[in-house]
Amino acid sequence: MINRLIEEIKKKEAPIVVGLDPQLSFLPEHLLETAKKEAGEGLEAVAAAVLAFNRRIIDATYDLIPAVKPQIAMYEQFGIPGLIAYKETVDYAKKKGLVVIADVKRGDIGSTSAAYADAHLGSVSVFGKTFEPFGADMATVNPYLGSDGVKPFLDVCKEHDKGIFILVKTSNPSSGEFQDKKLGKKTLYEQVGQMVEKWGEDLREGQYSNVGAVVGATYPEVGKQMRKAMPHTYILVPGYGAQGGKGEDLAVFFDKDGLGAIVNSSRGIIAAYKNEAYSKYKEEGFDEASRAAVLDMKKDILGAIGKK
Amino acid sequence: MINRLIEEIKKKEAPIVVGLDPQLSFLPEHLLETAKKEAGEGLEAVAAAVLAFNRRIIDATYDLIPAVKPQIAMYEQFGIPGLIAYKETVDYAKKKGLVVIADVKRGDIGSTSAAYADAHLGSVSVFGKTFEPFGADMATVNPYLGSDGVKPFLDVCKEHDKGIFILVKTSNPSSGEFQDKKLGKKTLYEQVGQMVEKWGEDLREGQYSNVGAVVGATYPEVGKQMRKAMPHTYILVPGYGAQGGKGEDLAVFFDKDGLGAIVNSSRGIIAAYKNEAYSKYKEEGFDEASRAAVLDMKKDILGAIGKK
Repeated sequence: MINRLIEEIKKKEAPIVVGLDPQLSFLPEHLLETAKKEAGEGLEAVAAAVLAFNRRIIDATYDLIPAVKPQIAMYEQFGIPGLIAYKETVDYAKKKGLVVIADVKRGDIGSTSAAYADAHLGSVSVFGKTFEPFGADMATVNPYLGSDGVKPFLDVCKEHDKGIFILVKTSNPSSGEFQDKKLGKKTLYEQVGQMVEKWGEDLREGQYSNVGAVVGATYPEVGKQMRKAMPHTYILVPGYGAQGGKGEDLAVFFDKDGLGAIVNSSRGIIAAYKNEAYSKYKEEGFDEASRAAVLDMKKDILGAIGKK
Repeated sequence: MINRLIEEIKKKEAPIVVGLDPQLSFLPEHLLETAKKEAGEGLEAVAAAVLAFNRRIIDATYDLIPAVKPQIAMYEQFGIPGLIAYKETVDYAKKKGLVVIADVKRGDIGSTSAAYADAHLGSVSVFGKTFEPFGADMATVNPYLGSDGVKPFLDVCKEHDKGIFILVKTSNPSSGEFQDKKLGKKTLYEQVGQMVEKWGEDLREGQYSNVGAVVGATYPEVGKQMRKAMPHTYILVPGYGAQGGKGEDLAVFFDKDGLGAIVNSSRGIIAAYKNEAYSKYKEEGFDEASRAAVLDMKKDILGAIGKK
C-alpha cells in the first residue's frame, strides 16, 4: 500500500492529504437546508449534509491530491447516521482513486485490536461470506498498549496490503506531557519511533514500510530528528495550517528525494471558504475555495522542499 | 456518576462488571440460525444475533450486577449493523438500570476529542434539537496525547454527570513496553496515574472522582501501588479470568471498605457455556451459564476482599 501512496504522490506532485473532518460549523447553510428538507431535522439530515459536503470537496480536488484522511470522531459524533456518512465517504473517495487514510487512532489488546483492524482495514467472514466493514486503505493507530495492540494491525496489513501510521509525536500543545518524557536516555516518542521501525521490518516495500508514523508539523525539530531515526518510515504530518505548522518548517520531515512524508491539512482546506484569502468563492463556492487552497498548499510545501 | 456506580455496587454487593464483547465464536449456533432466517446472510444477521445474545445475558444477570462494559471494537468489526447493535445494547442495559461503561479507548486532540466525548457520553445539538449519539454513562480513554486529549472528556463529564476510566496500566503482556519505562524516577504508568488524580480533582463526588483509571488484574503489584498512589480514583480492573487474573490477587486493588475497584470479566461470563464448569447448561442455556458464572465470580471476589 505504501508504494501505491507514493505513486499517487509522485503522479500528482503533491505530498499532501486533505483531512475530511466536517465539524458542524464548517457545513454551509445551503447544504444543511437542502438536507433538512429531504431528511428532517435529525442526525440523518446532518449526516446527509456531511456527505454532500465531502463529495463536492472530493470532486473539486481529487485530481490534485493522492489521499484523503477522514477523522472518524467527526462522524461518530453524529451517531449511526454519521458513521453511515463516514462509510459512504470512504467508498466515494476510493471510487475516485484516492488512498483513504482512516484517522481512527484505535489501539487495544489481542482479539480486540484484531477486531478494530478487521473493521477498518480488513474483512470479516460470516455465513461463509466476506465483508469489508469500513474498508479504508490505511489507518492511524495508538501505541500506548505496546506490541500486543499493534501486532493485529500488522497482520491485517500483510494479509490485505494495507498500511498504518502509528502515533509517535502528536501535534497538540500538551503532546509532550508523556511523549517528551525521558525513559532512560530516550524520550517516549523516540522509543515508540524505534518500535515503529521494528514493527515495519517485515512490511517494507522497497525503501519504505507499510508501518508509518505520525509526527506533528508543530514540532519541526522532532520531525528532523525522527526523519533520521526512522529511515524506512513514512511520516504523516498533521498540524499544518490551522494548528500553526508552516510550510517552510516542513522540509525536515522529507527525505532528499522529496518523499518520506505526507502533510495533512483539514480545516485549512475544507473550510477554506471561511478564510478571507478565499472569500471571493463565497459559501456557495466552498468546493472551489478548497481547490484553490489545495493548490496554494501544494505550492507552499513543494517550495519548502525545493521541488518547485 | 461515580456515586451512582458505587450505590449499585453496594446494593448488589458486587464490585464486578460484565464485559459484553461478543466475538463471533461466542454466539450460539441457534441464535445465528434464527437471525439468518430473519435477516439474511449478511452483517445485519450477525448484528441481530449479537443483540439477541446480549439481551439474554443482560436479562439473566442484571439483578446481580451494577454495570456492563460493551467493547465497541467487537461491534465495529460488523460495520454499521454492528454499531446499531452496540447502540441498542447500550439502550437496553440502561433500561435495565445498569451503568454502561463504553470501552472505546478513544483519545485525540482538542475538537476531535470533544467530538468523541460528545459521541459516547454527551450530546450534539442540530437544528435546535439535542441528540445523544451513543449515550453511555462512562467510557475508557487513552492518555497518550496528554491533557489536550483528556480535557474535552472532563468537560463532558462535568456537564452531563458522566465518568471516564483512563488507561494507566493495561492487562496485556506487552503493556510494559512503554508503560513500565521509567521517565526520570517514575514509570510512565505512575506519571499517568498522577495526572489521573489531578484531572479528577474538580470531579470528585465525596471520596472518589468521576475520573477513574484502568489497571489490569494481571499486575497485582501495580494494583497495590496505584491503589495507594491514586486515593480518589476508582479502578476498573480488566484481565480477570480468561487473561489470567485471579480473585485472590485482587484484594490489593480495593480500599479497606471494599470499594475503590470494579473487576471486569468478559468471556469468562458471556462465553461461560463453553467452559466445562458450566457445560450442564448447554448452548441453549448460555444465559443461565452466564448467571452461574456471575455468582461464582462475585463469591470469588468478595471472598478475596473479605466481604463474604
